Formats: sequence, structure tokens, C-alpha cells
Amino acid sequence: MQTIIKNAYDWAAGFLGQGQPATFIPELTKQDPNQLGVAITTCDGASCQVGDCHVKFTIQSISKLFLLAVALEDSGFDYVFSRMGMEPSGDPFNSIYRLETERAPANPMINAGAIAVSGCIRGDTAEQRAKRVLALAAKCMSVARVERSAEVFRCEVETGHRNRALAHMMQGNGVLDGNVNEHLETYYHACSMLVDCTMLSRFGAVLANGGRDLNSGHQLVERETARLLRTLMASCGLYNRAGEFAWRVGVPAKSGSGGGIMAAVPGRMGIGTFSPLLDEQGNSVCGQKALEYLSRKLELPIY
Amino acid sequence: MQTIIKNAYDWAAGFLGQGQPATFIPELTKQDPNQLGVAITTCDGASCQVGDCHVKFTIQSISKLFLLAVALEDSGFDYVFSRMGMEPSGDPFNSIYRLETERAPANPMINAGAIAVSGCIRGDTAEQRAKRVLALAAKCMSVARVERSAEVFRCEVETGHRNRALAHMMQGNGVLDGNVNEHLETYYHACSMLVDCTMLSRFGAVLANGGRDLNSGHQLVERETARLLRTLMASCGLYNRAGEFAWRVGVPAKSGSGGGIMAAVPGRMGIGTFSPLLDEQGNSVCGQKALEYLSRKLELPIY
Amino acid sequence: MQTIIKNAYDWAAGFLGQGQPATFIPELTKQDPNQLGVAITTCDGASCQVGDCHVKFTIQSISKLFLLAVALEDSGFDYVFSRMGMEPSGDPFNSIYRLETERAPANPMINAGAIAVSGCIRGDTAEQRAKRVLALAAKCMSVARVERSAEVFRCEVETGHRNRALAHMMQGNGVLDGNVNEHLETYYHACSMLVDCTMLSRFGAVLANGGRDLNSGHQLVERETARLLRTLMASCGLYNRAGEFAWRVGVPAKSGSGGGIMAAVPGRMGIGTFSPLLDEQGNSVCGQKALEYLSRKLELPIY
Amino acid sequence: MQTIIKNAYDWAAGFLGQGQPATFIPELTKQDPNQLGVAITTCDGASCQVGDCHVKFTIQSISKLFLLAVALEDSGFDYVFSRMGMEPSGDPFNSIYRLETERAPANPMINAGAIAVSGCIRGDTAEQRAKRVLALAAKCMSVARVERSAEVFRCEVETGHRNRALAHMMQGNGVLDGNVNEHLETYYHACSMLVDCTMLSRFGAVLANGGRDLNSGHQLVERETARLLRTLMASCGLYNRAGEFAWRVGVPAKSGSGGGIMAAVPGRMGIGTFSPLLDEQGNSVCGQKALEYLSRKLELPIY
Repeated sequence: MQTIIKNAYDWAAGFLGQGQPATFIPELTKQDPNQLGVAITTCDGASCQVGDCHVKFTIQSISKLFLLAVALEDSGFDYVFSRMGMEPSGDPFNSIYRLETERAPANPMINAGAIAVSGCIRGDTAEQRAKRVLALAAKCMSVARVERSAEVFRCEVETGHRNRALAHMMQGNGVLDGNVNEHLETYYHACSMLVDCTMLSRFGAVLANGGRDLNSGHQLVERETARLLRTLMASCGLYNRAGEFAWRVGVPAKSGSGGGIMAAVPGRMGIGTFSPLLDEQGNSVCGQKALEYLSRKLELPIY
Repeated sequence: MQTIIKNAYDWAAGFLGQGQPATFIPELTKQDPNQLGVAITTCDGASCQVGDCHVKFTIQSISKLFLLAVALEDSGFDYVFSRMGMEPSGDPFNSIYRLETERAPANPMINAGAIAVSGCIRGDTAEQRAKRVLALAAKCMSVARVERSAEVFRCEVETGHRNRALAHMMQGNGVLDGNVNEHLETYYHACSMLVDCTMLSRFGAVLANGGRDLNSGHQLVERETARLLRTLMASCGLYNRAGEFAWRVGVPAKSGSGGGIMAAVPGRMGIGTFSPLLDEQGNSVCGQKALEYLSRKLELPIY
Repeated sequence: MQTIIKNAYDWAAGFLGQGQPATFIPELTKQDPNQLGVAITTCDGASCQVGDCHVKFTIQSISKLFLLAVALEDSGFDYVFSRMGMEPSGDPFNSIYRLETERAPANPMINAGAIAVSGCIRGDTAEQRAKRVLALAAKCMSVARVERSAEVFRCEVETGHRNRALAHMMQGNGVLDGNVNEHLETYYHACSMLVDCTMLSRFGAVLANGGRDLNSGHQLVERETARLLRTLMASCGLYNRAGEFAWRVGVPAKSGSGGGIMAAVPGRMGIGTFSPLLDEQGNSVCGQKALEYLSRKLELPIY
Repeated sequence: MQTIIKNAYDWAAGFLGQGQPATFIPELTKQDPNQLGVAITTCDGASCQVGDCHVKFTIQSISKLFLLAVALEDSGFDYVFSRMGMEPSGDPFNSIYRLETERAPANPMINAGAIAVSGCIRGDTAEQRAKRVLALAAKCMSVARVERSAEVFRCEVETGHRNRALAHMMQGNGVLDGNVNEHLETYYHACSMLVDCTMLSRFGAVLANGGRDLNSGHQLVERETARLLRTLMASCGLYNRAGEFAWRVGVPAKSGSGGGIMAAVPGRMGIGTFSPLLDEQGNSVCGQKALEYLSRKLELPIY
């Protein structure tokens, strides 16, 4: 495995320099674009890493999974999915136009959906809600606590005009109640979590392991929730590249504009990758390449 | 003329009961739906009224003309129209989807455009800006001062989720700067002005008179600004019924969801109508009928 | 007048070279891009020309007016406007997407509308229908007969995939019956009429004259039809530049991608211009400039 | 297994009467709406059926898989996917509006994509192309030959205005060459194949078996093609219910408006269901229910 992951790294490194930094969050453009890390954690707890596996970056959209898990715990499946769908949308992650013709966002993995999800999390303040999301994240990634980037948080609050527009549209549509600022802050707190690709691989392994802790076997997220997250990752996890990714890699995965991708291979392993430059749809270019290599060599496709 | 206006009233009254109240502002649904008023003020200062001409209602979208006049004075034509177009949009007045593909709102007569216009008015607070709009309105309608409905203002602030979304989209697109709340409040202050149809007819007469006061001849709005307003009224004044209205009535006019319509017949007269029930596009049903009758009898079409 | 038209020509000629040829019809790109002609015909029959006023070009979309006039004669106002609206659309002239959400095309001046109009003209074959359109055109432009460009006709039939798509969408929506090929050919026959700007100015003068022949006073098109055409020209005649044109020129006009523009100033005159390079919306650049100059000097705006 | 399939049938039968017939093809409304059949064929060749498993119905959109397999054989992966994407679209199966903003159809499982696929199949006539599609279908479903419904074929040709519009849009966009009628006929020939759910289950088993014949082990479709088809089925196989189906059933599947659904459970089995009434997205209501039951009892989800 160490050899295969090393080869995956080497092959993917050949694509360094391709793609763009995530310009819509100015803070994210400061990252060294030549970084690349790949980490695997198997369901029996073994792990291996190569490259920049201890570099911290913001989790961004991968946090949508934690948000959804907490929202499902707080408000239940029926309530959450009365306020959004679970269909791939065919639109960019921050698209607003469908909220004009349809009441609810297409799925919880696009921005509109994640903001609606934030509105399903209980708590008196954004900070209270965020703490519960961070607590779950810490458990799933086997760390004592998850740090956040205050700069990225502030930057997202200040520049997130589009997300604010999405939130107000949803409030007008009756699928988001209460204080819009609180929901956006909850979302941005989650997005600003600092992770590395080893941590992501552990989260992937927990999802791959039916939601159970790899050591203790404790159910960190419900078995059915873990399956739901894997299913949504498969159809909506890489925005408008989900279809091609399903063909080239073929495993449930979720990308974040911070440069991370987390994959969960059911019953087998979690994989975390990190490389900052993104394709047009907002997914890490080299991360996808590393996953494509691993998928081929380890015969990972679920389809 | 008194006979013709009376006949116009009688014919239009036959359509009372048709249409819907403006449900999107709950406060507006309280109005008696059977009211109808028609007022004419000619460019030489003569006037006649029939029906509910002294009932006050909120001016709503007709205020977009005052907002634009002040914005042009403050920021100039080039600046204002670098932030919006002057094309009819073919979309509902509160539509958002084009702000996804185009940077700027289509014209100043739809909500997005009027909010962008509000952002071009100088002043430290919404109240300061609103005061200048109200001052112009008072002059153009020959009243000492214009009152506002605090209830409608509050109601619009509270329920205007869609307008808030429009404003944040435009801020993201770089066509609205500063504090979104201030701009929305400026807009709502203008919308909540209380007018009657006699006042509207005077405003129409001023526009018809090249922007000059009917008595003193003072230039209340610039001659070219008056022509611009009349032109925009002709192509965008009745939302998505502008085309049919041009055929059936054929004069520059602007409707408001409060039930008013103001028309300006170049060189001849201003007409104000009031009747609360609206067609699907948000224009007073009976007001349009009264204008259609007057247009036919007085040969008003400009085309 | 001869001086003013000469000055208009000179000023507009300063913009030669700006704009693009109409690439979507390959045949049209063959025209010399430096041509410019301006012609005026007053309602009392006087006329003056300057520049390339005897160069023939294809009438293209200006023929939509003749098509509509014949359709109204054949099928009546109610039938025709049960199959289309009369609202400006805010979309490009060949746009299809609204036919997905709305049954009928927005107005008769966009391609979809003109094809639906062709479907309202009586006749057993496209040629028969076209002949009646040509006969009306000849009368309105005071020529014995109107020639057509067989090359442009053939080229449009061969490359008009988008128009064909529009036609089939409308057939599916139930607003176009019968043989799609026949309707498209009728439309293309009309588009391929060869005119010069003097001829266009005569047509404009007839419309400006309430539909009556300038010499004989014969009603060539019904008075109300002439007003309808002028009204539609004002709101939809220059596609998505209709609003700005209303401000800069302010008279009912219709442009064609062949480089012509025809304007009808109610009660005063018709104007024809020709210059092949087009703006992004498909309207002749220098033609608009000449009209803008004339409008300012002759105080033409109707608003 | 016989018990489980019987219970699946019984449970699904409780939903008979829900849904609508496929009104867009008049011929399809003639089917008895109370039919229900479920058939399983395992990868080792065992099979069991319950209900209306020998009733023939038209395969409709399930044929898109055969069309794609032949197109890939004829034109290769790179050529085919230069003319379409492989992303779920979020739009109805016959949607046209994206062809206005994007050059190519989103994926081969929506109508536009399947018509573009038909254009990648070699052959001089529609009949020639259709024959090769039918030959592959016969092999994959283990029948000597596949019959077609001439009535349904004729009906689709006559009423398929929308598909014709899609084809012409694509021709204009340069992703469909040659004779549009031929491509549409090829597509309709494929759609009009008569199958029963036992046949569909055999096709599913072949795909589940890596494209190999269950008895002989012959490669009927390439191994990678079989994986591509399963992957596309998973993300786009049930139109805009693909996401929810992934959650409720969790196996690659393709539905047809004739009432059939074919599922391929990798390495395990194929399942065919038939019941004519469709949900809003165009998928058999009771077929989905039967699959949902089987998925739960047999633990089929791949995610």
C-alpha cells in the first residue's frame, strides 16, 4: 500500500500547476499552490501518508457532511428533507436561479442546501451550533479538538454576498427560518475548520465503516446517516464534476474549495487528499488525480 | 373633459372585482378593493377628478421615478447607467435569475434596478436620502409635504426577503456598494409615500411638461431627465404588461402595487388612477381600463 | 433637410468599422462593410438621400412587419395574438429557452414570433404565402416588384438550425400548426427580399402616415395595423437595444441583420438607413448613429 | 429468493393506481395500468419471476444504454464524449434550455444526449443503425430477436416535436451532424423495442457481470463499457429522481417511460420491473417500490 500511495502521489504531482486557486475567498489564495498530500486510513485502522499530510487547510465544503449529520440528529430526516431535495442539480455550487422557480434547494451539498441545513441545527447562537459541529468533527477525525481559521471565517462573512442572497431567497421561500446571519455564521464556522489530509482520511474511514469509530466501534454517526452521506457524496460530492468523477474514480467523495477531498470506500477505507489548485467546478485537480490512480490500482469503483 | 373622465370612470368601474390584492405586502391587502379614482391635470394647470381621488394609498413602485431623478442629480447619468441597463427585461418585477448571468439589473423600473438606484443617492443615512426623495416628490405633486405609512414601511422591511436577496446579489456583482440595509430602507421609505390620484396626475403633468412646474415654470427635474423618465415608463413602466399597455393605451405610465398608475402624455397632461386590485403582472386592473378609455376618446397614443 | 441628412451621414460615417458582420448567415458577410446610406421620405411625399442609397441588401427582420400585416389580414388580431404575446422579451432574437416555460413566443419581432406569424398566413405553399407578402411590400415601398436573393434564401434554409428548433418547439407547444418547412420557407422568402434604404424610408413614411399611400391616400395597411406595427417597433424593434434606442433616438424603428433600419416618425416621415456592421444585439451600428443625429436635430422623439 | 421477490411484489402492488400514464406518447396510454411484474436474474444464471413478467411493453429510455454501447463501439469514448457530458443535469428528460447556454447535452441518458448518441452510430440508414442496436439488445437479453412496436414508433415520429427541436438545436451547436430525421428514427426504433421484465433482468445481469454472457462468458459489451453504463445509470438513470433513488434503492438502474426499470447490482444480479404508471419524473411508481423492497431485504445498496 505504501508503494501504491507513493506512486499515486508521484503521478498526481505531475499535474501540479494545473487549475486555479479559489479566488472567491481571498484568504484562500495565500496557500502555496504546489502542495500535495495523500493519506489513507483503512477500516481496520491502518494508515499511510505521503507528501504534505500535516499541512493544515480549511475544510470548506467537506464540512457540509458534518453539518448535515448534526442537523439530522437535531431535526430528523423528514424535517430536513422537507426543506431541500437530494438530487444533483447540474448547476454551479453557488447558483441561485433555481430558487426562483423551485421552493427548496436541490441538495445539501450545494451552498444553498448547506445554509438550509444550518438552519436545522439547534442552538441559541451560531457559536453554540458550531461547537456541536466541531465536536462531531473532532470525534470523526480522531483529534482532541478542531481549530478554526479566524481569518478565513472573517473573510467569508465579509465577502459572502452570494451566500447571503441565497439565504434571503430561501427565507422568502419559507425553507429557512430565524436569523439569517446566525445561519451563515454557523456555516462559515464549519467551513473554517482546519484539517489535514490524514484527518480527512480518518473521517472517510468512519463513513466507510458504517459510522463506527475504528477503534472502539462506537457509533459516531448513525449507520443510516453514514449511508446517506456516502450516497449524497456519490451523486453530489464534486459539484458538476460528480458524474465524471464517478466514472474516473467511482467512490463516494466530497471536495472542498480549500483544496481537500475526502473519499469513503464502503467497507474498505477512507482517503484524504490535499492540493490547493482547483478545476473549473471547484475541485482539487491533483487530489482527483491521486484518487483516480488509487482507484485503478486498488480497484475501488463501487459501480 | 369632465364628461369624458366620468365616462372613463363608469366604464372602468365595470371591472371592479377583477384582479387580486398585492399579497406580497400583507399591509396592502387591507385596502377596500372597490375603490376607483381618476384624476387629470393638464399642462396648462386645469384639473378634474372623479371617484376616490382623495383616498391615500402608498405610491410603491411609482416612487422609482423619484428615486431615479434624485440619483441622476447626485451621481450623473453615466455613473447610474454603469450600474444598470435601460432595457425591458421580460421578467417579473422581483426576478433574480438574470443577476446570475448578467452583472447589472436590466432597468431602473424593476426592483433590482430601483435598489441599485437607491445606492446612487447621496446621504449619510437612509432617512437623509429618503428626505431628499420626499422633497422632490412634494414639489412635483404640489403638496407641502408627503406623508409616509409607517406600517407599510415596517411591513416591507420585515417581509422583503426577495429584495434583500437582490441587494446582496448586486453587492456580489459589484453594482451596489455600502450598507445593504440602508439602501433597502431608502427604497422602502420611498415606496411608503402616501399619495392620492390627484397628486399622481400632477406629477404626470410635470413630466409631460418637460419637468417644469405648471405654474411657476421652474424646472423641477431637468428637461432631459423628464424625457428619460417618460421613455423608461413607456418601455418598462408596467412590468411585463408594458407591451400590451403600449398598444391599448399608448402613453408613458408607471404603475405601483399600491393600486396607483401615473401617466404622462407629452405636452398635454398627467393622469392619475387608483384602484387596488392588480393583474398578474402587478398593475391596477381598473386603472388600466380607465386609461384605455381616456386614450381612445382623447386620442392620446404617442406611437 | 438636405443639409441635416448630410451632416447625419458624415457624423455616422465616423463610426464605420465598428461592429461585426452578421456571421450567422454566411452569405451576409460578403457585403462591403464600409457602406452607409440614409434616406428620408416625408409624409407629404418629399424625399432626400445621401450615401449608398441604391445599394440593395436583404431586408431580413424588417420583413417581420410585412409578415405580421398579412397575418393580421388573414387570421385577425385575436387569432394571431392567441399564438404569441406583444411584450419585449429581454432575450436575444433567436432565444429558445422561454418556449420551455411559456407556451407562446413573447412578441412577433423575435424569430420565434415571426415564425408563428408565418403560420398565420393563408396559402397552399410557402411560395404562395411569400407572394402575398412581397406584393404588400412592393406597394408599401412604391416599387413594381420586390426581388429576392436566392443565395441568401438558400443559405438561411441550410444554416437555420436554431429557427428550425424554435419552430418544432412551438409545434410541440401547440402554437404552430401544419408543415414546419413551409412556415420556415415563408419566413426566409420574406427575409431574402432585396431593398435599399430609399425603399425602407418609403415604407416608414406609409406607417407614419397611418398606413395610407403617400400619393393616392389609399389605405395600404389598416390604420390600426399601422399603429400596432409602430407600437411593436417602439418596444421590440431593436431587440435588446430597444430600450437604449428609445432613449437615444426615440422613434418606432425596426432593424434587420442585413444592415437596414427603418424608422416611422408618426405623422412626419419615414427614415431608412443601411450599413452592414452590427452591434452585439444585431442592429446596424452606423444606422443607429445616423438616426440618433437626425432625432436630435429634427426633434423626433415621441416620448 | 422466490419468497422475497413475492413479498416485494405484494408490497409494491399496494401502490398500484398511484402515478400517471406516459401521456406524451399517446400510444403508451393504452396499457393496462394495473400490471406489475418483477424478475431477477442472478449472475450465475438463476432466475425467478412474479406477476406480469411476460407482458411485452416498449423499452423506451432503457434503450439509451444499447444506443450508447453501439455508439462507443463505432466512434470511441473520446469522440462520443466530445459531443456530450456525463453529468446529471437537474433538468427534465426532454429539457432544451441548457442547449442555449451550453454546446453539448449534459449526459447520454436524457433525450438530447441519446439523440446525439444516435448520431455517433455508423450506418447508411436509420434502419441499418437500428438493426445493430437490436442485435446487441437481443444478445444481452438472450432472445433470438427483438420485436418492435410499429404503432409506438409511428406515434413517436409524429408527436416528437420536442425531440426534433432538441436535434436541430444540437445541429446548430455542432454536436449533431447529418440528417436529423435519420438520427431521430434511429432513436425511435430503439425506443420501440418490445421487452418484458424477464428480458430486462437478463440485460441487468449481463451488465452486473462485467458485460459477459451469463452462460458462455462471452464479452457482449466491453468490461469498461459495462462499468460506464452502470456508472451513468447510478447518477442519471432515473432522471431527476436519481438522487432519491440512490438513497432508497442504491443500485445502478435505468427507467423507461414504457413502465420498465432495469437494475444492475454489480457482481450479483439484474432486476427487471414493469408497471405502467409513472411518477412526475417519468419513472414507474410500483417498479421503484419493488426495487426498494428488494434492496432492503437483499442488502443491495452499493454506497
